[in-house]
Amino acid sequence: MNFGIIIYFLGCILAIEGALMVLPCIIALIYQETSGFWFLGIGCLCGVLGWLMAHKKPKNSVVYAKEGFVAVSLSWIVLSFFGALPFWLSREIPRFEDALFEVISGFTTTGSSILSDVEALSHTMLAWRSFTHWIGGMGVLVFLLAILPMGAGYNIHIMRAESPGPVVGKLVPRVKTSAAILYLIYFSMTVTEIILLLASGMHWFDAICLSFGSAGTGGFGILNDSCASYTVLQQVIITIFIIMFGVNFNFYYLLLIRKPKDALKSEEVRAYFGIILVSALLITWNIRDYFPSILTAFQQTMFQVGSIITTTGYSTLDFDLWPSFSKWIMVLLMFIGACAGSTGGGLKVSRVMMVVKTGAREIQSLIHPRSVKVLKFEGKPMDSSLIRSLGIYLAMYFVTLFVSVLIISLENYDLETNFTAVVATINNIGPGLSKVGASCNFGFFNPLSKVVIMFDMLAGRLELFPMLVLFSPQTWTQAWKIRK
Amino acid sequence: MNFGIIIYFLGCILAIEGALMVLPCIIALIYQETSGFWFLGIGCLCGVLGWLMAHKKPKNSVVYAKEGFVAVSLSWIVLSFFGALPFWLSREIPRFEDALFEVISGFTTTGSSILSDVEALSHTMLAWRSFTHWIGGMGVLVFLLAILPMGAGYNIHIMRAESPGPVVGKLVPRVKTSAAILYLIYFSMTVTEIILLLASGMHWFDAICLSFGSAGTGGFGILNDSCASYTVLQQVIITIFIIMFGVNFNFYYLLLIRKPKDALKSEEVRAYFGIILVSALLITWNIRDYFPSILTAFQQTMFQVGSIITTTGYSTLDFDLWPSFSKWIMVLLMFIGACAGSTGGGLKVSRVMMVVKTGAREIQSLIHPRSVKVLKFEGKPMDSSLIRSLGIYLAMYFVTLFVSVLIISLENYDLETNFTAVVATINNIGPGLSKVGASCNFGFFNPLSKVVIMFDMLAGRLELFPMLVLFSPQTWTQAWKIRK
Repeated sequence: MNFGIIIYFLGCILAIEGALMVLPCIIALIYQETSGFWFLGIGCLCGVLGWLMAHKKPKNSVVYAKEGFVAVSLSWIVLSFFGALPFWLSREIPRFEDALFEVISGFTTTGSSILSDVEALSHTMLAWRSFTHWIGGMGVLVFLLAILPMGAGYNIHIMRAESPGPVVGKLVPRVKTSAAILYLIYFSMTVTEIILLLASGMHWFDAICLSFGSAGTGGFGILNDSCASYTVLQQVIITIFIIMFGVNFNFYYLLLIRKPKDALKSEEVRAYFGIILVSALLITWNIRDYFPSILTAFQQTMFQVGSIITTTGYSTLDFDLWPSFSKWIMVLLMFIGACAGSTGGGLKVSRVMMVVKTGAREIQSLIHPRSVKVLKFEGKPMDSSLIRSLGIYLAMYFVTLFVSVLIISLENYDLETNFTAVVATINNIGPGLSKVGASCNFGFFNPLSKVVIMFDMLAGRLELFPMLVLFSPQTWTQAWKIRK
Repeated sequence: MNFGIIIYFLGCILAIEGALMVLPCIIALIYQETSGFWFLGIGCLCGVLGWLMAHKKPKNSVVYAKEGFVAVSLSWIVLSFFGALPFWLSREIPRFEDALFEVISGFTTTGSSILSDVEALSHTMLAWRSFTHWIGGMGVLVFLLAILPMGAGYNIHIMRAESPGPVVGKLVPRVKTSAAILYLIYFSMTVTEIILLLASGMHWFDAICLSFGSAGTGGFGILNDSCASYTVLQQVIITIFIIMFGVNFNFYYLLLIRKPKDALKSEEVRAYFGIILVSALLITWNIRDYFPSILTAFQQTMFQVGSIITTTGYSTLDFDLWPSFSKWIMVLLMFIGACAGSTGGGLKVSRVMMVVKTGAREIQSLIHPRSVKVLKFEGKPMDSSLIRSLGIYLAMYFVTLFVSVLIISLENYDLETNFTAVVATINNIGPGLSKVGASCNFGFFNPLSKVVIMFDMLAGRLELFPMLVLFSPQTWTQAWKIRK
């Protein structure tokens, strides 16, 4: 294990986090809130620690898959630890495990909260909470890659470990340039959303926080009722943007380099919009009697469907009150998730498509045993190693899911609560059903369950393997042996 | 498609079903019940139809995978259709869809019932109901293979389509001999259970019906409280036998040919007993306060654990009342299921082991990228096509599960009911949780939901693909094209 490079990465991450804490300091200045001092203090601490760890570049800058996984998962833990300190020290969230839960939920863009009264937080804290979504959405290490002057070509391991989806699309051959393009698209779309929300008459603070939350597909709101009290126009703008942030960023890159035909060819993006439309129509039909007009029903449904499939988690109503059919569609959408290469979570549309395609081909090959049709996805043949790793991913996903529910069940809440609490966090959605529904929070769980849920949020955001490698005893026994 | 051979198979199946209806006729004679006449009539009808369809052996006796799948799934549907007629015609189950549900539940060894008062049925019907478990447990077509004089070596496709588990173990090179050995073991174990239950003082009728139910890992009882009113000794005997019927029959074959060392080497059988023991200990600890002594708690837990992991479905108490932790373990056991090559359902222990092994190897190979350890199961290397088909199976399993829950959700019962109703039937267990718990029944569902559940029971028993092939439009469009 190349510990030097891991420490170097962690140092850089800390320095970046210190710099990012300037934003809550500015908000504190504007609103004259004392909680800004905590950010100033912790920000400086992060800066100093970061400088100590990263001022000397290690000689050996080679990053293999293992180092990539460990560096990424450790970075996210360190990031969350320091990010939680201001909440805890300022006593705005009195228990440390709750502060950590809130910040992990933020960075992983989950949006599950332990707070029952969000509005009691200071503006500084609310801004930091939403800002963590924006930081976590595109990935901190991807950002690092965009700005670090690193020579070796091994950085793809870092990008692969942090980026969502089964196949990592480097947009261009150079990792650094790819990362920079991604951040450019991300930044401009966020700014556009802020401007549109401002134009619709929203307060600047709400506009910024909500845009951060939708860009990262996070879901932390700043009002207790999430998005219910905004105007219909504002809700529609948010709906459009959360759905847009769930699209594979390749799509925007292709638009950017003026290849709209190639962009529209993407099977995943088409399927993504298809799933949203079909689900929304089915649910609208199912809940039409809940609303004065079918149009309102459709608008409200689109908001919840977009929010759940992109794993954002904003809500304008409590869909736990919907009929079972609509609720089950929502549970399915929780699993499907957004496109690969977007800021959304879940299994990803491309994985689900590959699963369905492979299954359909299997049945076909039973019917026509001599058919040799090659299975394709996005125009490229799906080789057996891709299908194999897809199967392994799904299997580990369900194992993690089942074991997590088992540990949480020790608390003896109902099955629906336990199951959807894990589904909502491992897929980085936010709200589940029953006791963890859209109008509830995760505060009532005991510390053990909270630790399991924090693990699930990180495992979900980093697509399982980085966390599983970090917590595998083998990783460390081998590292220890080589040291000796 | 070789329609000749499929019709020939269906004819044989019908003739066998006619012959099997002699048993309920005997019971009717003993108890002087008029319902026996229905069995006499339908039995004769089956005999005549069977003779018409199968008196001429088709010239082309080649069975490819496709014909195997279609023959097997059609056989099970035809078998269930005629098996349901006596229930319906005698008005003991007034609606045809309910009679069909009950018989499919019987043949697939599920044990889910639509009856709220089992004790109201005549002895003749009760005996037939339990007998369907015994017939379905080992498979009717496997029985056919044991007695039919067929030359071609393609019968393995039939056996493969009907036998549970990822790898079909032909015990000996000849399919016919393998099938005969399986039935011999099955028959002797059933007789042993009957004798032991008689020796424990049970009434002969109960002993026969319960033994049929446990041999097939079915679960239809003849009392409204399932097995709660039997003595502890009787419950212990049943516990031991249901667990024994969940063991891979290869194990018994190896014992039979005096290779106990090879038998004990089986990883699957060891894991199976390990899972039972660990689950029982965890649950006993969790529910120790529900019982006067820890020993009673353990005995009761072993009964429910054995009943659920083997997907039998007998019960001596309502585990829906247990705490969430124990309930979730039961849900996990529902998914795991019994050993491959046993009469039990579920995903099968061997599949779950392969999944865990493959996942663990994947993590290991991320840590040691240059390690080339071959993944082994039962001493044989797991090649990538096995892992691939495992992944595809799991994927299709979850797709079927999710879609089934979606359709059932149209009825607007709670999520726990809908979800566990499908889990309990696709895994051929019987009782679920909430409204379909051990003390409830499936009678309240509407016809559409019942059809979905019937499909799930058949798909679960036949391991998905035969049913999916049968209902795939491609199968029939291609057959049609070739005909023309």
